[in-house]
Amino acid sequence: MKKVVLGFSGGLDTSYCVKYLTEEKGYEVHSVIINTGGFSAEELQEIEKRAYSLGVKSHKTVDAVRSYYDSAIKYLVFGNVLKNNTYPLSVSAERVTQALVIAQHVKELGADAVAHGSTGAGNDQVRFDMIFHIMIPGVEIITPIRDMKLSREEEIAYLKGKGVQMNFEKAAYSINKGIWGTSVGGKETLTSDGFLPEEAWPTQLSKQGVEKVSLQFVKGELTGVNGKTFSHPSEAIQHLQELAGPFAIGRDIHVGDTIIGIKGRVGFEAAAPVIIIKAHHALEKHVLTKWQLTWKDQLSQFYGNWLHEGQVMDPVMRDIEAFLQHSQEHVTGEVYVTLQPYRFQVTGIKSEYDLMSSKFGKYGEMNSGWTGEDVRGFSKIFGNQTMIWHQIAESVKDK
Amino acid sequence: MKKVVLGFSGGLDTSYCVKYLTEEKGYEVHSVIINTGGFSAEELQEIEKRAYSLGVKSHKTVDAVRSYYDSAIKYLVFGNVLKNNTYPLSVSAERVTQALVIAQHVKELGADAVAHGSTGAGNDQVRFDMIFHIMIPGVEIITPIRDMKLSREEEIAYLKGKGVQMNFEKAAYSINKGIWGTSVGGKETLTSDGFLPEEAWPTQLSKQGVEKVSLQFVKGELTGVNGKTFSHPSEAIQHLQELAGPFAIGRDIHVGDTIIGIKGRVGFEAAAPVIIIKAHHALEKHVLTKWQLTWKDQLSQFYGNWLHEGQVMDPVMRDIEAFLQHSQEHVTGEVYVTLQPYRFQVTGIKSEYDLMSSKFGKYGEMNSGWTGEDVRGFSKIFGNQTMIWHQIAESVKDK
Amino acid sequence: MKKVVLGFSGGLDTSYCVKYLTEEKGYEVHSVIINTGGFSAEELQEIEKRAYSLGVKSHKTVDAVRSYYDSAIKYLVFGNVLKNNTYPLSVSAERVTQALVIAQHVKELGADAVAHGSTGAGNDQVRFDMIFHIMIPGVEIITPIRDMKLSREEEIAYLKGKGVQMNFEKAAYSINKGIWGTSVGGKETLTSDGFLPEEAWPTQLSKQGVEKVSLQFVKGELTGVNGKTFSHPSEAIQHLQELAGPFAIGRDIHVGDTIIGIKGRVGFEAAAPVIIIKAHHALEKHVLTKWQLTWKDQLSQFYGNWLHEGQVMDPVMRDIEAFLQHSQEHVTGEVYVTLQPYRFQVTGIKSEYDLMSSKFGKYGEMNSGWTGEDVRGFSKIFGNQTMIWHQIAESVKDK
Amino acid sequence: MKKVVLGFSGGLDTSYCVKYLTEEKGYEVHSVIINTGGFSAEELQEIEKRAYSLGVKSHKTVDAVRSYYDSAIKYLVFGNVLKNNTYPLSVSAERVTQALVIAQHVKELGADAVAHGSTGAGNDQVRFDMIFHIMIPGVEIITPIRDMKLSREEEIAYLKGKGVQMNFEKAAYSINKGIWGTSVGGKETLTSDGFLPEEAWPTQLSKQGVEKVSLQFVKGELTGVNGKTFSHPSEAIQHLQELAGPFAIGRDIHVGDTIIGIKGRVGFEAAAPVIIIKAHHALEKHVLTKWQLTWKDQLSQFYGNWLHEGQVMDPVMRDIEAFLQHSQEHVTGEVYVTLQPYRFQVTGIKSEYDLMSSKFGKYGEMNSGWTGEDVRGFSKIFGNQTMIWHQIAESVKDK
Repeated sequence: MKKVVLGFSGGLDTSYCVKYLTEEKGYEVHSVIINTGGFSAEELQEIEKRAYSLGVKSHKTVDAVRSYYDSAIKYLVFGNVLKNNTYPLSVSAERVTQALVIAQHVKELGADAVAHGSTGAGNDQVRFDMIFHIMIPGVEIITPIRDMKLSREEEIAYLKGKGVQMNFEKAAYSINKGIWGTSVGGKETLTSDGFLPEEAWPTQLSKQGVEKVSLQFVKGELTGVNGKTFSHPSEAIQHLQELAGPFAIGRDIHVGDTIIGIKGRVGFEAAAPVIIIKAHHALEKHVLTKWQLTWKDQLSQFYGNWLHEGQVMDPVMRDIEAFLQHSQEHVTGEVYVTLQPYRFQVTGIKSEYDLMSSKFGKYGEMNSGWTGEDVRGFSKIFGNQTMIWHQIAESVKDK
Repeated sequence: MKKVVLGFSGGLDTSYCVKYLTEEKGYEVHSVIINTGGFSAEELQEIEKRAYSLGVKSHKTVDAVRSYYDSAIKYLVFGNVLKNNTYPLSVSAERVTQALVIAQHVKELGADAVAHGSTGAGNDQVRFDMIFHIMIPGVEIITPIRDMKLSREEEIAYLKGKGVQMNFEKAAYSINKGIWGTSVGGKETLTSDGFLPEEAWPTQLSKQGVEKVSLQFVKGELTGVNGKTFSHPSEAIQHLQELAGPFAIGRDIHVGDTIIGIKGRVGFEAAAPVIIIKAHHALEKHVLTKWQLTWKDQLSQFYGNWLHEGQVMDPVMRDIEAFLQHSQEHVTGEVYVTLQPYRFQVTGIKSEYDLMSSKFGKYGEMNSGWTGEDVRGFSKIFGNQTMIWHQIAESVKDK
Repeated sequence: MKKVVLGFSGGLDTSYCVKYLTEEKGYEVHSVIINTGGFSAEELQEIEKRAYSLGVKSHKTVDAVRSYYDSAIKYLVFGNVLKNNTYPLSVSAERVTQALVIAQHVKELGADAVAHGSTGAGNDQVRFDMIFHIMIPGVEIITPIRDMKLSREEEIAYLKGKGVQMNFEKAAYSINKGIWGTSVGGKETLTSDGFLPEEAWPTQLSKQGVEKVSLQFVKGELTGVNGKTFSHPSEAIQHLQELAGPFAIGRDIHVGDTIIGIKGRVGFEAAAPVIIIKAHHALEKHVLTKWQLTWKDQLSQFYGNWLHEGQVMDPVMRDIEAFLQHSQEHVTGEVYVTLQPYRFQVTGIKSEYDLMSSKFGKYGEMNSGWTGEDVRGFSKIFGNQTMIWHQIAESVKDK
Repeated sequence: MKKVVLGFSGGLDTSYCVKYLTEEKGYEVHSVIINTGGFSAEELQEIEKRAYSLGVKSHKTVDAVRSYYDSAIKYLVFGNVLKNNTYPLSVSAERVTQALVIAQHVKELGADAVAHGSTGAGNDQVRFDMIFHIMIPGVEIITPIRDMKLSREEEIAYLKGKGVQMNFEKAAYSINKGIWGTSVGGKETLTSDGFLPEEAWPTQLSKQGVEKVSLQFVKGELTGVNGKTFSHPSEAIQHLQELAGPFAIGRDIHVGDTIIGIKGRVGFEAAAPVIIIKAHHALEKHVLTKWQLTWKDQLSQFYGNWLHEGQVMDPVMRDIEAFLQHSQEHVTGEVYVTLQPYRFQVTGIKSEYDLMSSKFGKYGEMNSGWTGEDVRGFSKIFGNQTMIWHQIAESVKDK
């Protein structure tokens, strides 16, 4: 009997896949769910129960929160990555982590095929397809929903016909939750205009007033919050999310280019990710040189886009990570942030690597390290080539 | 008698310069003030009166708001330029405009020297020095405050000794106002930690509730607000500022690299600039291709930094402007923004150039332009090289 | 009867396509050949005769040399584009020009389909497919050789069966000639090692000694050679090719990434293109500022790669062309080149825009524009941030 | 008695400095010469003798060939750095190495001052000044030739007056030799036109015919030549130079931007460096992915320019080196090169990491990894956004 590994979320599409692959295609189905921070232990148990009730041969739950952080989020923080200057890549980054875990499971089981529940309309199909092609080339990739262009109604009819009982109601918004943010799509995001209504956001405003937090960074990684340290940065992120989420911070709508060329729009809430990136960037502005900041920006923009397009296995990503890792040597210190309903403000930093140290001259004050004459000489030489260019342009014009 | 042209603001430093250049150096002083949007007609008259009372031979007031927009702000909008992802370059951009106008005045008067009141501690000295070196090479540049390392107290004592009467009190914060934003420096910004207190901000919160505005862009330029059109984009900017300013929007602290290598921190409020840039960027995300967005980002980041460093006359800036101008061909449409106390949200756009048009496939829905098989083929070829790379890496490892 | 437009070269693959589309598929075939500089008038007549003898309904010959130059080569010169620092994109650039002309012919004829003779192994299939998808979406694309995975032998057998008489012998090397260079593929280029043998090169060495030529550029375009001016730069290119070709200059092997992800290797000879690019670059080094050179390099590398990948219709290409065009304002002057068997040397330039003009200081000699003190000040400020960085790094280490 | 450390080459300028600093300024002079591959043991002894005869208190000879390779050349090879696509940075790179060694010597001796013999006209003054400011801030920098604007004749007269005997004849060309190339300046290079005459080149043509060499690279470093391995890459470089130099390979003229803004032109011969860079790049084209090649190019161009400008101590350089180092993981293999008088040709490579491996599809041949349908789907999706853009542009035009 041929084996297929199926990425399983417990939703309609992947539930359909289990039944279809087992009963229509005669596969032994091995389902796997990868938790990247969006599921509670109870939810994971529920999903496992469902998988077995649908008839899978085996079901595996993989807790990938730490490996997800170590292989992706860490570098997104180092690079202050906000796609199109807005979106922390909440979904993009976790999809590639999930695909890699699934590919690994295929290898371990020696499976003949791999299946995913993607439709033919989004980014995820490309991410799954491509990572499977790269990591397990030759293994057949089965995508029932995409291949048969199934509608929601057809899937439900099929499952009901098989006696499957589950909640078939369609949610108003499609929600995807992970440690690096929650995406919210539907209604307003399907057109170019309109913000999500208050009730659409999974996390509702439940804190008022002003709250101050301090974030401790060591070599670019968040190691502590308000002085409390954690055994792994992923825990610090989750702790900050608990503090900041109730302020309804980090809501926005991302407009972006899908891998398949169309434009897409999606809402997201990501309090901790957005605060961490802004705080980390603030610290970097104090401890990195001008050209470190400049090159980090260029490399990180590409890194984020390439990750978004599912190209995480391109070795150039490892080279960029080497750059980013090295750039964090001095990114150690504390950042102060003020939280308020719907907004936050980075108010300052403290670091022994702070280049704004008053020992070496203060902006706006005279200092002992150099003289006005030095700056006068600097200005002359700094503008020399442009001066010559203009003199020559003038001299040609005068002819 | 030798002539000197002096950039004059009516403040302590440039008042000192008038007296010093006239009485100690024997110059005929010709003062000039360039309004880039920060002065009212009354203030400009007051400054002119002061100049003559200090003894200038001539005083000139130049209204540079439109030329400032046409030569600088326009491109900052096209490029969505926020230095270090924060600061709209409020002061940087206007300094180079001012320096260019002063240089032009020197040429017109055939002056022997040019003077500015900069100290030896900031960016402005470089911008003025360099643009004078480039545009009026050979003309002597006099900088009394920098050269004599004068303290505030010394300047006051000198002016009092000369019988000058003016307000010698030191403001708690140093404020610089222009159409593209107002900078606020002092106390908290002199160290790495601390946000400006409410009372330090020139524009106080005076509106409550929620206000919706629509912004009309034509080829990247703001031409209308709420459907009202203006004879010049600078007027649209000022109108938006009047609407949004009272919400205390656009306050932040910029941490950046000065031209002379030290780090500096400065507060700013810039409601209209920040809203316009975010709205313009949102529109671009809908109408530009992925690579237009990518290259605009890279060129604009450099453009902003190079402008900040006073290098506006480098011909590469004209080349980049040609790119930016051309990229705006389709950036026409309407952007919707919601204003609230201390924050705003771009909620959507409408444009006939919108690439998210539902005619060509919707994100998240199947469509008629291509099939699942097309995407499957795409994913395979898109990951081909990385697949080969990993296969070869594996085969070497296995040896 | 349904109409199909076929890109026709007179070779085996496209001859097969005529017969197949006419006789097996029942199409009315309209063939078109686009001359981008590789065909003589006699060859074009011969190809037309062959097309009609194979049974096309109409055949069109389009002389695209000037439009090819105007839309592509011009910018490749402005950008000094050598892919992977070697290859002037001889074939890549002409394919997209050809595809655009074919698409235009489809529109004019109101054809139902378009066909090309590409196999499934190279870049050309993507260039043709993609430009047809973009410019004439919805028009069916037929690729018989690729779709049926036909071997050379199968094609010959089919054509012989249809009574077609032509030279069926396989050339040792596959050659593609155009105004911007001639590619030579086969034998040695199919593996990673081995240079093409002397006899493989279409242009044989037939000149000895040393020949000096001068090239006249106006705003970046080659307008004259040895003082002789031409009515269009494409003629100047062809004239230079006649002078330099017999020296067997410009031979090399290009190793590159195909669009479909595999690596490919191909020989080429391109005397005029390589000389023009090196001469143009030499002139630019004298008349452009440092940052103009830097940004031109970055944009041009992308421009060449994106053109190579067939993405010429992405509007970002027009934006980059606007930059490149603007950057050429001062690229006017004369460049001196020495030709010898197998090699050439740019020996100098002359331009009224030369920034090396002795009026403003000579490298290696003292000058009057600035003093040693100016440079001393410059050096101090130029290194200021790095000095502070090291001081702080030391102070932390000492703790 | 105050101590000064003097970079000493034995030439006119630095001989003047010894006498001047000792006798006019009363310093105890400690001379140091850093060999970066340009001096023989005999020459170094001669220079030491001269130093003592001029009256230095101590003289130190530092062999920096290996550390020069390890800290600079290695990365120039990794990055295929040719400034302005021509010049291997022969002089620029060794100057910063020399300055760093001198600064170290100042620290060890606890000297009060440091001196260099630069004039006020070139790049070297900035490199020395800046690295001293950064590494030994506060130590006085003395530059007698620059400060007193001394002419050659004045220096000779002074030295003769002091009874110094040395060869005071001026060489026709100023030559600077090191392991990474020899620069040749004078006459022709002082203007924009003219190539150096045969006799000006230090290495004369003395080999004829054709010679084949193979170069062995391990992780990007040249470890062997013709199968012979070396204990350090610097020895492999010197061995290749012995083989290739007599062919008079690697001669050219570099036109570039000096740090102080003027343009400069200088001849150089650098057989081994140019061959190594081209060979290394050829290997990389086979083993790196498209985006590795692209980003390496961008980072390396900056790296070379920033090194040229003396900014080697900016920590961004360490970050880029981390990227470059990591990118070399697969750059292992053999490169074949043909040497002939005045030219060379890379003819092929062999590497177990070769991505052109025939196992995964050959360029120009059908293969089993993907189908024509896959490419058809790829082309459609790859051009999707541009297709939509053009459709929308057309639809707006039609209105």
